[in-house]
Amino acid sequence: MTDIYQPRRARVAALLGEEGVGELLVTRGVNVRYLTGLASSNAAMLVRVDGSAVLATDSRYIETARRDIGGVEIVEARDVEATLVELAGRPAVEARDMSVARYRRLGGGDLPVTEGLVERVRVVKDDTEIEALRTACALTDQAFADVVATVAPGMTERRLARALEARMVELGADRPAFETIVASGPNGAVPHHVPGERPIERGDLVTMDFGALYGGYHADMTRTVAVGTAAGWQRELYDLVRAAQRAGRHALAPGAGLAEVDAAAREVIAAAGHAEHFGHGLGHGVGLEIHEDPFLRAAGTGRLDDRVPITVEPGVYLPGRGGVRIEDTLVTRVGGPELLTRTTKELLVL
Amino acid sequence: MTDIYQPRRARVAALLGEEGVGELLVTRGVNVRYLTGLASSNAAMLVRVDGSAVLATDSRYIETARRDIGGVEIVEARDVEATLVELAGRPAVEARDMSVARYRRLGGGDLPVTEGLVERVRVVKDDTEIEALRTACALTDQAFADVVATVAPGMTERRLARALEARMVELGADRPAFETIVASGPNGAVPHHVPGERPIERGDLVTMDFGALYGGYHADMTRTVAVGTAAGWQRELYDLVRAAQRAGRHALAPGAGLAEVDAAAREVIAAAGHAEHFGHGLGHGVGLEIHEDPFLRAAGTGRLDDRVPITVEPGVYLPGRGGVRIEDTLVTRVGGPELLTRTTKELLVL
Repeated sequence: MTDIYQPRRARVAALLGEEGVGELLVTRGVNVRYLTGLASSNAAMLVRVDGSAVLATDSRYIETARRDIGGVEIVEARDVEATLVELAGRPAVEARDMSVARYRRLGGGDLPVTEGLVERVRVVKDDTEIEALRTACALTDQAFADVVATVAPGMTERRLARALEARMVELGADRPAFETIVASGPNGAVPHHVPGERPIERGDLVTMDFGALYGGYHADMTRTVAVGTAAGWQRELYDLVRAAQRAGRHALAPGAGLAEVDAAAREVIAAAGHAEHFGHGLGHGVGLEIHEDPFLRAAGTGRLDDRVPITVEPGVYLPGRGGVRIEDTLVTRVGGPELLTRTTKELLVL
Repeated sequence: MTDIYQPRRARVAALLGEEGVGELLVTRGVNVRYLTGLASSNAAMLVRVDGSAVLATDSRYIETARRDIGGVEIVEARDVEATLVELAGRPAVEARDMSVARYRRLGGGDLPVTEGLVERVRVVKDDTEIEALRTACALTDQAFADVVATVAPGMTERRLARALEARMVELGADRPAFETIVASGPNGAVPHHVPGERPIERGDLVTMDFGALYGGYHADMTRTVAVGTAAGWQRELYDLVRAAQRAGRHALAPGAGLAEVDAAAREVIAAAGHAEHFGHGLGHGVGLEIHEDPFLRAAGTGRLDDRVPITVEPGVYLPGRGGVRIEDTLVTRVGGPELLTRTTKELLVL
């Protein structure tokens, strides 16, 4: 079997060369997993500019590490960071992912720092990663299809959220990728509403924001449906958000500016007089984390690359009345993005 | 309804007084939740030595915050930490929970630091917290009872893990408290084995380590069962771990030293010649986190308090053969601990 991790370490090593860093201490769990495949709550690694690497983990994970990881020196340690600093001398540390307390204790508190170096490598996904995301998104679509048929007045938000989550797991998800949002009626005005005991009522808009975790990769999808009937203002709001979401998707392209993609959707909402009712960014990268680089927002700098999985999720939130959000997970591609979440974006009236 | 959060803030304020700190910037999400009830991915707060407090969160959570939190000034902000530092002047920051990168950007990188101050307050639980843990543990017990009846040769580890998780959620858990471990046969020698496609076989020991999350609180339980039949060495190993676990539970008392409780169980295993096959600590606190203070381990310093939820989980792991671990969640009490996970510790032969 091909080692998918060695090329990832080589890309980090190349970046170390560009940055003039000889050795990097990787302490963030998700980065260690990305570079070795090991999912451990206590592991760290050194990556050297020559491409070689050392992984340290404790007795709970050492057998798994020795069995599964190729091409990396493996050492058993409890204090994995201190052990690797001693081995290396003066490695750079990941400044975003090391606490002030830890830094003060390691290497005299004056080690060089880098920021987001492994994260930069993680932005562009390889085939294995995109395939895992395809599966995660397919499980999300299927769970929606299976559960949406059961939505009816009287069902609580919480019960609907748990049903979506249980169905994803039954279908093969490792677990939900994040805590499911179900926001019904006026609760739809709260973008991150925690599903509660409110029973869904006829005439409600109901927003469901959820996704499956599969092989470590996070799907993210939102759909808003109507229950029983949809009033004129609800249809108008839905059509507006749908048009904004379409504009955002169509703006996704390798080379496009992050702020420019955000603006493509935001301008549609602003033109309808709802600028102040869309208070969050347009989307975010997904992968080993549910929110990762790049972020689509008005203040975003930088441009999209090719093969970057990302969400597009505009929303309009009317305090006291409700809201609509529509979100897909896609992958940037030359010639147009690949849509991973394929559930219909027609307004469903259940 | 009584405000359960104000007394928690008062305990932090009292500790600030003892430490000579005028204002503390609380940036850790779980600490903000503990002190206000708000579960937000972007919130921070100031707690002052006079007991007053300011919470900052962004537009996604601001309506929830304004609706649910009493007795705290609430401000809307995107950069919640910078906003509060500006408001406060020169607050102490939580050094374990602030990154080196962030610290360098806040307040000129020379703010005073504290370590684990809110965590110290969180060790002793109030009635609301213990009640949530009781429910989480009861759900865990019930899921075990329901699912263990279905264990049979041919079932994969992964399927069993997913069944335990799905059952907890059906019964009312918010979600699993952590990624369920199911380790069968030789995989039982890996304490944190990730459940895979290995089918359970007749003659296996199968270790299940899992728990429910309820109201933000984490249950943690492990049971090892035998499938079809239990060989002599398996029964011996089981009886040994069970005796060690009993010794650990009996040593739990307000005032007992952390290392002393660890030793009570460890000595039983060492006396049987298996010291090197028990490579992890005896247990850990549980609460809003699955692993939190205090930690029962040989190098532990400090003593147990009253009303501290904690796990007792010795294990013996024989490389290539398998392992046994038995774990309960308990609460320290004067007169003897309260057992929250009540599943039998008899060896079940399924």
